[in-house]
Amino acid sequence: MNSAKQNTKTAITPTRTEDYPEWYQQVIKAADLAEVSPVRGCMTIKPWGYALWENMQRAIDEQLKATGHKNMYFPLLIPASFLEKEAEQVTGFAKECAVVTHCRLVHDAEGKLVPGSPLEEPYIIRPTSETIIGEAFSRWVQSYRDLPLLVNQWVNVMRWEMRTRLFLRTSEFLWQEGHTAHATSAEAQNEALKIFDLYAHFAEGYMAMPVIKGEKTASERFPGAVNTYTIEAMMQDKKALQAGTSHFLGQNFAKAFNIKFLGTQSKEEFAYTTSWGVSTRLIGGLIMTHSDDNGLVLPPKLAPVHVVLLPIIHKEEQRADILAYCEQLAQELRQISYDNKRLMVEIDIRDLTGGEKAWSWVKKGVPFRIEIGQKECQNNTVFVGRRDQEYKERYSQSRQEFLATIATQLDELQAKLLKRASDFQKQHTLDIDNKADFYDFFTHSEGGFAAAHWDGNPEIEAKIKQDLNVTIRCIPLLNTPEPGKCIFSGEKSPQRVIFAKSY
Amino acid sequence: MNSAKQNTKTAITPTRTEDYPEWYQQVIKAADLAEVSPVRGCMTIKPWGYALWENMQRAIDEQLKATGHKNMYFPLLIPASFLEKEAEQVTGFAKECAVVTHCRLVHDAEGKLVPGSPLEEPYIIRPTSETIIGEAFSRWVQSYRDLPLLVNQWVNVMRWEMRTRLFLRTSEFLWQEGHTAHATSAEAQNEALKIFDLYAHFAEGYMAMPVIKGEKTASERFPGAVNTYTIEAMMQDKKALQAGTSHFLGQNFAKAFNIKFLGTQSKEEFAYTTSWGVSTRLIGGLIMTHSDDNGLVLPPKLAPVHVVLLPIIHKEEQRADILAYCEQLAQELRQISYDNKRLMVEIDIRDLTGGEKAWSWVKKGVPFRIEIGQKECQNNTVFVGRRDQEYKERYSQSRQEFLATIATQLDELQAKLLKRASDFQKQHTLDIDNKADFYDFFTHSEGGFAAAHWDGNPEIEAKIKQDLNVTIRCIPLLNTPEPGKCIFSGEKSPQRVIFAKSY
Repeated sequence: MNSAKQNTKTAITPTRTEDYPEWYQQVIKAADLAEVSPVRGCMTIKPWGYALWENMQRAIDEQLKATGHKNMYFPLLIPASFLEKEAEQVTGFAKECAVVTHCRLVHDAEGKLVPGSPLEEPYIIRPTSETIIGEAFSRWVQSYRDLPLLVNQWVNVMRWEMRTRLFLRTSEFLWQEGHTAHATSAEAQNEALKIFDLYAHFAEGYMAMPVIKGEKTASERFPGAVNTYTIEAMMQDKKALQAGTSHFLGQNFAKAFNIKFLGTQSKEEFAYTTSWGVSTRLIGGLIMTHSDDNGLVLPPKLAPVHVVLLPIIHKEEQRADILAYCEQLAQELRQISYDNKRLMVEIDIRDLTGGEKAWSWVKKGVPFRIEIGQKECQNNTVFVGRRDQEYKERYSQSRQEFLATIATQLDELQAKLLKRASDFQKQHTLDIDNKADFYDFFTHSEGGFAAAHWDGNPEIEAKIKQDLNVTIRCIPLLNTPEPGKCIFSGEKSPQRVIFAKSY
Repeated sequence: MNSAKQNTKTAITPTRTEDYPEWYQQVIKAADLAEVSPVRGCMTIKPWGYALWENMQRAIDEQLKATGHKNMYFPLLIPASFLEKEAEQVTGFAKECAVVTHCRLVHDAEGKLVPGSPLEEPYIIRPTSETIIGEAFSRWVQSYRDLPLLVNQWVNVMRWEMRTRLFLRTSEFLWQEGHTAHATSAEAQNEALKIFDLYAHFAEGYMAMPVIKGEKTASERFPGAVNTYTIEAMMQDKKALQAGTSHFLGQNFAKAFNIKFLGTQSKEEFAYTTSWGVSTRLIGGLIMTHSDDNGLVLPPKLAPVHVVLLPIIHKEEQRADILAYCEQLAQELRQISYDNKRLMVEIDIRDLTGGEKAWSWVKKGVPFRIEIGQKECQNNTVFVGRRDQEYKERYSQSRQEFLATIATQLDELQAKLLKRASDFQKQHTLDIDNKADFYDFFTHSEGGFAAAHWDGNPEIEAKIKQDLNVTIRCIPLLNTPEPGKCIFSGEKSPQRVIFAKSY
């Protein structure tokens, strides 16, 4: 694809308005983030996608450690009998899980490899680890002195999904799952809410992805949870993405797994537990929040590369000067601190035209592209392209000014992305006050988030899902909820809830 | 366990000389590094063990990135048919692997969960990923411009081991596996050797674990490898531990998976590949290299905590002063840089006696324990216990002096551990020049590493394994190998090789 073409056409075909789901796949391909693997429903995460995940991990991990959580590692396999101990886990996970039944492969009569040596009990690959961790907690927790127990793990999990989409829904995905046990209900509730806040801050502060914070209705809760808190983000097609959940599990898992402690009064009590997680799904959310018809757009705080330097060499005799200029500039940039780390800088010395090089980094979403040719060397300048601006809006800046302002410019870009996404979310979140408007909003208008009164009746919820494929994304946590009347039944409603189509 | 007891007895029972294998298990338990899980052969890695792994990961990952390797993530599951494409992989891994055959659990007539929905083709949980990565490389590599391809992943793998020991041999373990493809044989060989050097530097520079660098004999090679390079360390029971391997795979996997590229002469050629890995087994090596009869001993460069502060409060009215003194000291220590990172400092405010507190950190292997009581507050001093010294050798030091010297003291401790282990290895590595002495060395004397001449005959190798359970650990890479005569056959031998019993 050459640069002339790029000025008349978008780098991504189709565009968002032409075909949003296909646009999403093409952005992933153009930025080389991941690909579908030959293993059913599983993805291969490529270097650019994995670097993004590593940056997300680092930010979240630091915050989890700072709040007293310790990383551990629990086994990948879970005995089928463990799942049986908690009835809702069976309902929630038994029907789509990878089952290990044998411990060797042998050649059959035709020389094909087939399972040999059956196991006494089947194992499943963890779809989540409440059960195996519950068993461990029951041994580790004896006295109130052992509480709170605050544990986290960064692992792969597997759910045998039928319809998969890269990052958003895959059979195998990567995540962190936190699991905690506490002496009192209030403490465990606080923990679930504290993590929920941490997730919301991460989404907004790092991903520049605004979220609505709320509680799930009973029908959307995690299997075995008393409360599920969720952060819900609006994608550019106005659908909701559940971006992270934190569960207060009450004593359900403590009772299923016998997590008991001797309290201060020497009375034996069941502990209260929580669990919470965010996954590689966040990468899907990041893509769909910011990217445009030219590809990925990265919030600077998570970008694997902040500034890419593009040497533009027209004549061979300029090469040495231009490369030396780039090297020195890269060194100066790498001394600059941004978000408490060093700036990440790359020099792209591939043997491509300037346009090809520049567009490849546009598609990868790098915040700043700096072209360096003979002119820049002579004038001690840089030729700057910013990912949030049109390609043709590139501008020249003195090298000193660029170096002096790059950290601030990255902050501005980060803030701008958040503001743009927040404005979009607000613009497409409507208070809706009667059923006809509600049905119209999700069928004839362009949709979005509908904030409407609902009386809490799960039958109404089910009917709406059936009619419109719309669900209650959350019951927002508000300081002063305003009561009203359910737009479906006319019954009392304690507050508006958020309805939307979702991923 | 109280401190009085500790002065007469060791913290770990049995001691190394009494029962080395049991001592190993007890050190792991006393330091709370990991435990056997209810899942056959799998371990649960606890916070102290996992923090150690994170530190190992960080050091290795930085070096892999600095040498141009990119992290990715490939699927956990491997179709059985992929294994079939490389005959040696089948032989090497098919007989001990976890086989996924179904994608749901259903209730049987008795209400028990049993496998439902059989899959068309079985998958195995990756025992290593050459095959699935080979398939990807065959798509990604088209031209010489796509080479070298330098990829790494940090993942869990599974081998259905029959006899397991925490860290050393478990059904599931964590590791990094690097996979690279190159245009020429020489380049791929160089890569395999470069990583091998990187592993050796890590083992010696971070783990303070001296290693012998060499090549495996044909019978000990990785399935499908042309050369396997290994670093072999000597444990305190004088057995060898294979601590990391790097494989030159020639064109074996390229041919099995059709990894071809168009060369500079527009001729299609098969690529040359390598693979290499180190695992949580390193933690076992670290434990067995340095720990003593009082528990774990950590090399400072990998210690999750460098200095622990132990407030010793005899009277309640001293509490505020002592804790304030500790807090301030911790803050000062955390400003100090060690190995390009900040010192890790903890204050242990648990409600335990001074002796109990101190011994719990001795067993965890923390380099420096600092007791702070009323006297230290008044005199502005610290009372120092160093993990490499006897418990009773604790000494008083001025706070200023301690702060000024702690980084150097950690370096000294690191160097001392390496020297101690190197001396031990040298002391127990003997040149052996006849068969009778050789058999005697491994049966009647205390054993160790035997450096002996061998003619390269695999039958002799097999016989020795059968007779003595001794294997050739490696053919050392030497600048000037000295030829001689095989002590078993009298035939010509190009150089001495290292024989030992091993884990």
